[in-house]
Amino acid sequence: MKGYQVLKCDFHMHTVFTDGHVWPNVRVQEAWKEGLDAISFTEHMEYNPHSADVKVDHDRAHDLAVDIAKEKNIVLVKGTEVTRQTPPGHFNALFIDDASTLVEDVDSKLDQEAIDRVFQQKAFIFWNHPGWKATQIPGSYEWIDFVDKMYKEGKLHGIEVVNGLGFHKKALDWALDRDLTIIGNTDVHNLIAHSYDIGREGVHRTMTLVMSKDRTAAGIREALEAGRTVAWSSKYLFGKEENVRDLVEACVAVSPAFHEKTNKANKVTKYYEIKNNSDLYFELELKAGKGTKRIVLYPGSTQIMTAPAGETKLTYEILSTYIRSDKHLQYDIHLK
Amino acid sequence: MKGYQVLKCDFHMHTVFTDGHVWPNVRVQEAWKEGLDAISFTEHMEYNPHSADVKVDHDRAHDLAVDIAKEKNIVLVKGTEVTRQTPPGHFNALFIDDASTLVEDVDSKLDQEAIDRVFQQKAFIFWNHPGWKATQIPGSYEWIDFVDKMYKEGKLHGIEVVNGLGFHKKALDWALDRDLTIIGNTDVHNLIAHSYDIGREGVHRTMTLVMSKDRTAAGIREALEAGRTVAWSSKYLFGKEENVRDLVEACVAVSPAFHEKTNKANKVTKYYEIKNNSDLYFELELKAGKGTKRIVLYPGSTQIMTAPAGETKLTYEILSTYIRSDKHLQYDIHLK
Amino acid sequence: MKGYQVLKCDFHMHTVFTDGHVWPNVRVQEAWKEGLDAISFTEHMEYNPHSADVKVDHDRAHDLAVDIAKEKNIVLVKGTEVTRQTPPGHFNALFIDDASTLVEDVDSKLDQEAIDRVFQQKAFIFWNHPGWKATQIPGSYEWIDFVDKMYKEGKLHGIEVVNGLGFHKKALDWALDRDLTIIGNTDVHNLIAHSYDIGREGVHRTMTLVMSKDRTAAGIREALEAGRTVAWSSKYLFGKEENVRDLVEACVAVSPAFHEKTNKANKVTKYYEIKNNSDLYFELELKAGKGTKRIVLYPGSTQIMTAPAGETKLTYEILSTYIRSDKHLQYDIHLK
Amino acid sequence: MKGYQVLKCDFHMHTVFTDGHVWPNVRVQEAWKEGLDAISFTEHMEYNPHSADVKVDHDRAHDLAVDIAKEKNIVLVKGTEVTRQTPPGHFNALFIDDASTLVEDVDSKLDQEAIDRVFQQKAFIFWNHPGWKATQIPGSYEWIDFVDKMYKEGKLHGIEVVNGLGFHKKALDWALDRDLTIIGNTDVHNLIAHSYDIGREGVHRTMTLVMSKDRTAAGIREALEAGRTVAWSSKYLFGKEENVRDLVEACVAVSPAFHEKTNKANKVTKYYEIKNNSDLYFELELKAGKGTKRIVLYPGSTQIMTAPAGETKLTYEILSTYIRSDKHLQYDIHLK
Repeated sequence: MKGYQVLKCDFHMHTVFTDGHVWPNVRVQEAWKEGLDAISFTEHMEYNPHSADVKVDHDRAHDLAVDIAKEKNIVLVKGTEVTRQTPPGHFNALFIDDASTLVEDVDSKLDQEAIDRVFQQKAFIFWNHPGWKATQIPGSYEWIDFVDKMYKEGKLHGIEVVNGLGFHKKALDWALDRDLTIIGNTDVHNLIAHSYDIGREGVHRTMTLVMSKDRTAAGIREALEAGRTVAWSSKYLFGKEENVRDLVEACVAVSPAFHEKTNKANKVTKYYEIKNNSDLYFELELKAGKGTKRIVLYPGSTQIMTAPAGETKLTYEILSTYIRSDKHLQYDIHLK
Repeated sequence: MKGYQVLKCDFHMHTVFTDGHVWPNVRVQEAWKEGLDAISFTEHMEYNPHSADVKVDHDRAHDLAVDIAKEKNIVLVKGTEVTRQTPPGHFNALFIDDASTLVEDVDSKLDQEAIDRVFQQKAFIFWNHPGWKATQIPGSYEWIDFVDKMYKEGKLHGIEVVNGLGFHKKALDWALDRDLTIIGNTDVHNLIAHSYDIGREGVHRTMTLVMSKDRTAAGIREALEAGRTVAWSSKYLFGKEENVRDLVEACVAVSPAFHEKTNKANKVTKYYEIKNNSDLYFELELKAGKGTKRIVLYPGSTQIMTAPAGETKLTYEILSTYIRSDKHLQYDIHLK
Repeated sequence: MKGYQVLKCDFHMHTVFTDGHVWPNVRVQEAWKEGLDAISFTEHMEYNPHSADVKVDHDRAHDLAVDIAKEKNIVLVKGTEVTRQTPPGHFNALFIDDASTLVEDVDSKLDQEAIDRVFQQKAFIFWNHPGWKATQIPGSYEWIDFVDKMYKEGKLHGIEVVNGLGFHKKALDWALDRDLTIIGNTDVHNLIAHSYDIGREGVHRTMTLVMSKDRTAAGIREALEAGRTVAWSSKYLFGKEENVRDLVEACVAVSPAFHEKTNKANKVTKYYEIKNNSDLYFELELKAGKGTKRIVLYPGSTQIMTAPAGETKLTYEILSTYIRSDKHLQYDIHLK
Repeated sequence: MKGYQVLKCDFHMHTVFTDGHVWPNVRVQEAWKEGLDAISFTEHMEYNPHSADVKVDHDRAHDLAVDIAKEKNIVLVKGTEVTRQTPPGHFNALFIDDASTLVEDVDSKLDQEAIDRVFQQKAFIFWNHPGWKATQIPGSYEWIDFVDKMYKEGKLHGIEVVNGLGFHKKALDWALDRDLTIIGNTDVHNLIAHSYDIGREGVHRTMTLVMSKDRTAAGIREALEAGRTVAWSSKYLFGKEENVRDLVEACVAVSPAFHEKTNKANKVTKYYEIKNNSDLYFELELKAGKGTKRIVLYPGSTQIMTAPAGETKLTYEILSTYIRSDKHLQYDIHLK
């Protein structure tokens, strides 16, 4: 895709080392089975409910999985979840060096310090699930001052627009308006298979599709900083218009007309194949031009579309994409 | 079934508290999703590879899962794995009181002491995977003196004839010859879903089918002591002839003839429905009488079988059962 | 169920002998694979688009399949589709004797004659897909005079409230108000597998569930005349309140409380198992009482529900049922 | 693949116009759903069991499906089955012009005439299922004189080595020894879905993979004449060594080493990804070199393989291929 590889990444998950239910190796196995390219353990700095049983060590989950990740050819990004009270809520910091020097104290007076410490480690920082407690804590699902300050100081680089199956609508627009990177993650605590019906056709975990120069941590970081991401959850894609368009163009191809049919009134209909080369799902609705009104492209499938002879362009809205909380991608198909 | 309920039980599994990869609650969730009635955590007494991270507490996995098991209506049998070197190998002890007073030292001089301690707690004791190291340790896959002594002293009550997908043939005959209870378990360390292709039609974990008076720990114990079990692994059932026969009779029903067809030579063929009301799989091959030669009964399915008019009994061998390492169940179908 | 068997029936389908795409035997095979109890070929009397290739013989599809149906233990009800122009539209006549003496001419002057002829053969007659051409032919999706006359003369016995995946809402109310039998069918022309994603978990063809004294044509006829039917399409059940209630009661069972849990405030919560013994799907929403708010019962599955101690009755609306076009079944669960 | 497209073709099937169970359009729909590129209706010239109901017209099935095939972009090759008694048995003739002028009489005196007529139409002729009646008619599953004469006169161009799920072992060797084209077909009479468990992961109909210059009838003919085919049935591929090798090379790719691991004895193990880009299944067993002993490559999957540092070539036998009745393909993997 435009010289980039599309990497499947999940940058938010937990293990028994904080409040997750699996040993770290299981996360790598799950990722391998599902074909992911990169994952990150983001254990809570400030929340350790298993501490009576499991020794608190903020780097340990990562360290235990480094070898198996290498053997499975999965990029393991070192991360943590800065788990402040809400507001301001939780922030993931990726590409950190050493979690043992970060802030463990949940006291709100240390919120700024907690962010500053991960920033000092040159982390890529994104705001997690901004609307998580929208109903319990009024005012928390807003572009709050704390976050605004982070943003203005260059300490906020992305927003987790989709967390699990929850789409944070306002957060998508905040990210678009401020050119922050759009992220989607599982935030999985239990088994992936207990949260997603993996194995059923077309079912996949929520993830961030990263358009990266290569399949390395450095490549992923560069792409995240450049904002070349699309979040993918259930049937839906969420991202900047340009990224979503590039992705669709890389996935969907329309053949030249392979057949012409003339009806009794001497009108000629042309037939085209439209092919989806990807694991993604696309649902198209015709907005301009005459032709097939609705096209559903299941992963790896081909459909036949028709248009009257002479029609050269059909404009579809791709209902399974969001390039703003209230806007789908408009997509032109040029017929030959 | 003859006034008994058939309970699905798995009496051998591990969590992060010894060498398993999941928190105890996950085992209960897995069991619930798969429809099990009873499970037992059998953490190793003598083997704690996670001890650098997880505090050693032999009762902890059980204790952490007690509540969720109750809420999911799953019987949680308190157990442990007495993990001696091979030979004599490993033994599971079910219905123990307190794992903290058992033997932790792997020194072979304490083998007897280790067994005696669980016996003192009135445990139900079975020998695990007897052929586990058959190729590495010659002589270990034999009816060894240590086990014979246990047996003669009444300290051995069953044998794990199937462990995961491994069928220990000799062990089946040992159990049959000595009237020991036949057990099948997963011995799962990783996720069930990473060991079994759960979700695929007909796929299930290895387990022990226990014919119990009720769905309680006491009921299960009584059934285990009375030997009313059948091990179920992949397509196969392993057990004492009487138990396997009772199980088949509870699962399979043949209708009266629903149709008669007369051919040109005036010979009459009768048609019968044979129904499998269970989750089990049965494969029948005709041994005596004239009729349908081979019948495959998938879970919950019905097949049609035929026989010439006048035929009143067909004898089938059920290839998917083992009532001895070299013997399938002979099963008579009486036609009406 | 109340002494009745619930039979799975599809009373509307076509073969190559009119405008279907399969030889009659295939319909029996499909029915057998899907576990149906009874089917009926309802070839069009007045529409024979294959006549250039296939000799027109209105009884032939039935006759060709009689033997295979007997061998598969499937009740084959002799039927036809009286295929008048719309309005009045199409009517299925079941339990006819001889299709060769019926009306073949589509001229609307013969509409009454066409109905009278099947009535003379003592057919069970129902109106097919009343809203089929609702958008093309205004006025056709009404309780038209022709049908009213049929009804008053006792020549209309049921209505096909569901045809394939199309639910004819008004038709459900017409049937309820006039005590006509509620029917659901596939009206399949192509393969069942090309119309339904058979093989996917929970997917089934549209059908009529008939509460019959036995598994015979006579039993089915008696049940149809007595109105003991529920139409089943996708996740939904459509029928008279009494029938839907009886069906739910036969399928769903709630256990006595198996567990009690006391919280910090000393409030006690009781736990119950709710089990769905059937192939049907039920979605319950709590309307009165305190307890689990929403319960989804997949085929053959069990869920856990809770209620505060002292609660003795919970009233649910079963969203997956229609006992009127705008009304779901109210269902009381008595807790023990 | 070496400049060729791999087309999925099934050159042997029946419809209601002889002894099949579906209308011709269904065969096109089935092919479309399964992603086939080309099919051929091969109705029996000499066997018309439906003639009491369906007018005999040997070209009709093809003619009825021409339009729908064009609309679905499926190449419909005009063919017929020359259905002589066994021996010599049945022969398919593809690319015929006009079936109405061929031999209908089954009298063995006309066997030669029947072949000559299709040869005069410049058909591509192959011998169907040579071992079909091997047990009933001794001597029929041999390289018989009639066939030998055809071969010597250039009237035999291929052999159907796989018919449905039946592999005709001797026929594979005959084809290899005489440079005849290797063909695999369904010979489907009933629904594809009743013969194959389509929908289950990895299940596909038996077919011929044709390496063609383009997706046209002419391209397919050229490829068939040049012998560029591999038969694919269940997990297995059958073909000339060169073709099978080309196919494997087009489907399977091994990455450069992505990881090195040094053990305590200072031995270095290298890790590689081996990827299967196709719908095919490959099972590899190591024959020479040190490395991963057994690799199973499911459709579209990637596995990890390892080898000691310094190892540059591993030779595998691909157990899921047959390049002779008793020989699998030897396949070298060059490590980087």
